[in-house]
Amino acid sequence: MRTGIATVCLSGTLEEKLRAAAKAGFGGVEIFEADLVTSSLSPESVRSLAEDLGLGLDLYQPFRDFDSVPEELYRANLRRAEAKFKLMDRLGIETILVCSTVAAGSAKYADDDGLRAEQLHGLGELAADHGVKVAYEALAWGTFVNDFEHAWRIVADADHPNLGTCLDTFHILSRAWDTEPIERIPGEKIFFVQVADAPKLSMDVLNWSRHYRVFPGEGQFDLPKFLGHVARTGYNGPVSLEVFNDTFRQADVERTAVDAMRSLIWLEERTAKHLAALAAESGPESGSASAAAAPTPAQLAAASRAYPMSLTTLPQVAPPSGINFAEVKADAAAAGGGELERLLAQLGFEPRGEHRTKPVSLWTLGDARIILNRQQARGVAPAISALGFDVENSVTAVARALQLKAVAVPRTSQANEEVLQAVEAPDGTEVFLCQDTLWTQEFGSGSPSGGAAVARIDHINLAQPWQHYDEGVLFYSSVLALSPQPSQEVSSPAGLVRSQVMQTELVEGERAVRLALNLAPWVQADSVRGTVEDTFQEHIAVAVPDLVATARACRARKLPFLEIPENYYEDLDARFGLDPEFLATLRELDLLYDRDERGDFLHFYTATVGSVFFEMVQRIDGYDGFGAPNAPVRHAVQHAARQAK
Amino acid sequence: MRTGIATVCLSGTLEEKLRAAAKAGFGGVEIFEADLVTSSLSPESVRSLAEDLGLGLDLYQPFRDFDSVPEELYRANLRRAEAKFKLMDRLGIETILVCSTVAAGSAKYADDDGLRAEQLHGLGELAADHGVKVAYEALAWGTFVNDFEHAWRIVADADHPNLGTCLDTFHILSRAWDTEPIERIPGEKIFFVQVADAPKLSMDVLNWSRHYRVFPGEGQFDLPKFLGHVARTGYNGPVSLEVFNDTFRQADVERTAVDAMRSLIWLEERTAKHLAALAAESGPESGSASAAAAPTPAQLAAASRAYPMSLTTLPQVAPPSGINFAEVKADAAAAGGGELERLLAQLGFEPRGEHRTKPVSLWTLGDARIILNRQQARGVAPAISALGFDVENSVTAVARALQLKAVAVPRTSQANEEVLQAVEAPDGTEVFLCQDTLWTQEFGSGSPSGGAAVARIDHINLAQPWQHYDEGVLFYSSVLALSPQPSQEVSSPAGLVRSQVMQTELVEGERAVRLALNLAPWVQADSVRGTVEDTFQEHIAVAVPDLVATARACRARKLPFLEIPENYYEDLDARFGLDPEFLATLRELDLLYDRDERGDFLHFYTATVGSVFFEMVQRIDGYDGFGAPNAPVRHAVQHAARQAK
Repeated sequence: MRTGIATVCLSGTLEEKLRAAAKAGFGGVEIFEADLVTSSLSPESVRSLAEDLGLGLDLYQPFRDFDSVPEELYRANLRRAEAKFKLMDRLGIETILVCSTVAAGSAKYADDDGLRAEQLHGLGELAADHGVKVAYEALAWGTFVNDFEHAWRIVADADHPNLGTCLDTFHILSRAWDTEPIERIPGEKIFFVQVADAPKLSMDVLNWSRHYRVFPGEGQFDLPKFLGHVARTGYNGPVSLEVFNDTFRQADVERTAVDAMRSLIWLEERTAKHLAALAAESGPESGSASAAAAPTPAQLAAASRAYPMSLTTLPQVAPPSGINFAEVKADAAAAGGGELERLLAQLGFEPRGEHRTKPVSLWTLGDARIILNRQQARGVAPAISALGFDVENSVTAVARALQLKAVAVPRTSQANEEVLQAVEAPDGTEVFLCQDTLWTQEFGSGSPSGGAAVARIDHINLAQPWQHYDEGVLFYSSVLALSPQPSQEVSSPAGLVRSQVMQTELVEGERAVRLALNLAPWVQADSVRGTVEDTFQEHIAVAVPDLVATARACRARKLPFLEIPENYYEDLDARFGLDPEFLATLRELDLLYDRDERGDFLHFYTATVGSVFFEMVQRIDGYDGFGAPNAPVRHAVQHAARQAK
Repeated sequence: MRTGIATVCLSGTLEEKLRAAAKAGFGGVEIFEADLVTSSLSPESVRSLAEDLGLGLDLYQPFRDFDSVPEELYRANLRRAEAKFKLMDRLGIETILVCSTVAAGSAKYADDDGLRAEQLHGLGELAADHGVKVAYEALAWGTFVNDFEHAWRIVADADHPNLGTCLDTFHILSRAWDTEPIERIPGEKIFFVQVADAPKLSMDVLNWSRHYRVFPGEGQFDLPKFLGHVARTGYNGPVSLEVFNDTFRQADVERTAVDAMRSLIWLEERTAKHLAALAAESGPESGSASAAAAPTPAQLAAASRAYPMSLTTLPQVAPPSGINFAEVKADAAAAGGGELERLLAQLGFEPRGEHRTKPVSLWTLGDARIILNRQQARGVAPAISALGFDVENSVTAVARALQLKAVAVPRTSQANEEVLQAVEAPDGTEVFLCQDTLWTQEFGSGSPSGGAAVARIDHINLAQPWQHYDEGVLFYSSVLALSPQPSQEVSSPAGLVRSQVMQTELVEGERAVRLALNLAPWVQADSVRGTVEDTFQEHIAVAVPDLVATARACRARKLPFLEIPENYYEDLDARFGLDPEFLATLRELDLLYDRDERGDFLHFYTATVGSVFFEMVQRIDGYDGFGAPNAPVRHAVQHAARQAK
């Protein structure tokens, strides 16, 4: 698949954009006109820079408000087009994007497709003189033409070899047009394909488009289905990203380019899976739904070969079967040093001793493993630094991650030590892909001495800087095969916190892995009382079979609980009408309570050390949430605790 | 007018919110339930704290999903309500807000207003037992009731003395309901009035409400008309702000409270003006439209007395008649010291000498006056620090500003010096209210020696931090009587820049004052190449009668022009088909060009010193814009210049 990206997706100067696109491995770029107009590079310099970088210049865009105009303006538009065709010749670009007119036009043109076809034919004639191909696209908010089928009918009527159509997922899927008719367009008349994803919002398409586009896999459009239709037409040209939003334009250009490339690799795989599943459904040798749901690598490869777009396949992995460990970086010597150890002991974790060669210790409670890492932690307040996930085969899992442009974490280990494979998540968290727990043998002689009968890490809650939030969603879904859930918003004293849960499927009422990514509201430290810490707290939640018993034991060990206000319990009672004895227990132990359509949830929080705190949870009868209604209480009490310091 | 604010408008703990509301001068607050539930203060402590602060507790809110439910749930809802009524007794709150149901309900209730009236009557009975008043409100997204007239019909049918209605501007104006029927509701049946403003957006009302509400005067709703209708019913209760958006929740609680209070003072004045204008229109002694457009202070006072809401009047001022001066703070000794002086001289400004007693110098070009202030500027990069506006009467203007909660700027001056009056704008800029230019006599002996025949400050462009952007709009419109224009967005290498122009009316093709507030995209300094400086550049634009001549003279004085790329001129030619000779002049002199429906615009920029640069402009035939299509070129070239440093 020929990959591409529009320069408008990236921040910085045109040269910075081209270098970043090439470095991320894109096949080509679309030159966004304003990027050229504002650049000090001459068209010839842009051309030779792209050649040096091995980057194709696949499209010049956009050319606006060409069609559906009176004769005089049509002539002026042809002159304007000719200037651009000459410019394209200097740039060495063959194809130009012409958008359907958005200017307020005379109503008499509303139904005049004949005029539009005629004017576009005229443009095709001029284009032929200059060796240019014109790709005509229906904008979702076009004055007269806003539907790709309509645009294609006009192109078909205009019937000129230098005129074809451009398909853009945003303009098609934001209007919820049926995509099946794409297959009726001859592949050779599709001159260009642009892809963008977006969250499903109910707002005007222009602002939706301008502020909320995201890369494929970060939104809610069914892009694999779209691209499947395109592949079936025989189209074999660029699949190019045209994505702009308030975040990307401000982010680092090189990392945005990598995020972008990852999204196309992800889209390619999903499209191949979609096509393989369709083939399996209708194929002679298989009619079963389960085959359709999970195509084999052979089926995937066949789907790839069957289409000229040559969809490739990545190493396949199953979703992780558990959280192997969580690591907290902490400086034992710093202020608050030793606090974490004390907290873990009070929670019932057992020290399993020091690592043989590194200043790292292991603490366990049942199957919940927490590593305290004192390496390079001098003066650093405790923070979650690494997560281990249980995978079937760590070599395959890492190979997949690297093909998805993840950065490997360099790791020094002794000859006799387990080699753990890790890659870096967008927020800097190290993600280890673990096949087993043999690595625990490298820790001292401390052996597990009971603790809770069954305990495991229930979920991890990571704070995400706003620039890397969408990137994080794509990372965890593409690299680790976690499924993103609809995002939620919870209120805190410092603003709304957007929370995105990534998790594995429900199997017999259980989920192996739950990860919550929290988009913290941005607080400017110097102008607001709350500090940045306010919004960057993260936590590790451990599931136990009897939370009340655990809480009592923790209380006996003098654990500093997060103190829950009395008002909360009165409100809880008004909302749920709880048994008075049960309510008294909740109140006594600072426990929080929630209920969903399946079952009940009991949980409590510890005080915070650095930016880390812990949660103990009990899921009853398959409760599947995270106690979100209680999040404002937690935020408010944590905020008040910081104010009191 | 009894002023109020919902605690949900403010950030922080409940105690912080109450203290900030009292300090800003509010009469009362609405207690938002989640703020109480998450607070460690007991209801009794909240009550006594409010008493100590002299703050009324005017409303408890919200109570959700009460009506249109089956019998069993209705009974449960009554129990839930009773718990809240008991809580209100402890808080000493008389009125509770009950919102129309938003839960998915059975379709059989869709037309059953009889059931709703019955259930609300039952709630009224229970409320009477507890001495509570229930204010029923139609939410814009209510399942069955989303229209204030509908809510009022149900309340009228329910016919219970303890039941009334609540009117909320957002829920009414976001749905564009006709507000005239408000006057048919008896004032004593309106139990509460909530006000919020908002930009006009085309999106689903729930997200619009949740993220985009702003304080009155910061959005586009016609609130004075709404409140005029309310005043005419005889309503005399609280007018209370219920405003939440992504910014306020993160901003400093005390300044948000002041911004909020300013918005109510502004709304009160606008409502009195609206009522006075209506009275003048229909009154016996006057039928002229001009009287209606600008009511006299006497008419305003009469309008205030005529309504039980007792609308007060502020000192009245006319919009400013010009920009008196701009001040740049600069450290002559720092790196780049002296650069500003050099730049001003190259632009053709004349030094008018040093101030008699302060390390401050004055530079003029025609009527454009720029002050360089070296006081407390050690090590500070040059930045715009103060603006002077020409007002009719500075004592009145300052009195008005102070009543609008502006903070006076403390000023030391000698006995024989002009006393200049200044207040602080939300971004920290000092705003001077000047009656004349006598202050210029305090500067040395340098006398104006010609320069351009006519020159004046055309506009000032100030960068606004995102937390204070809306506040800035309200400040300049309420304090200085500038009119906000629809905001625009222009692209820059570091993101979209939202630009809000505040200006005086067009009089004979001229505007006395133009001020552009730019909301800079937020760039995290440590993760992006561009630095914060990128987005905090500000500038002073000077209008001259012959820009080409000015540019040639500046070139002769070796002014460092912002260098405009050749690609820009090629695009300009393709767009406008300019006369080749004229285009050659633009190209030669690095001039930019724009055209609107009135006339032409020529302008050029200087290089940047600190965060300040200058622009020279020429408006031809009443061109009324700012050259917005050229802004991306400027941003890109400035960005490239910084990268090159």
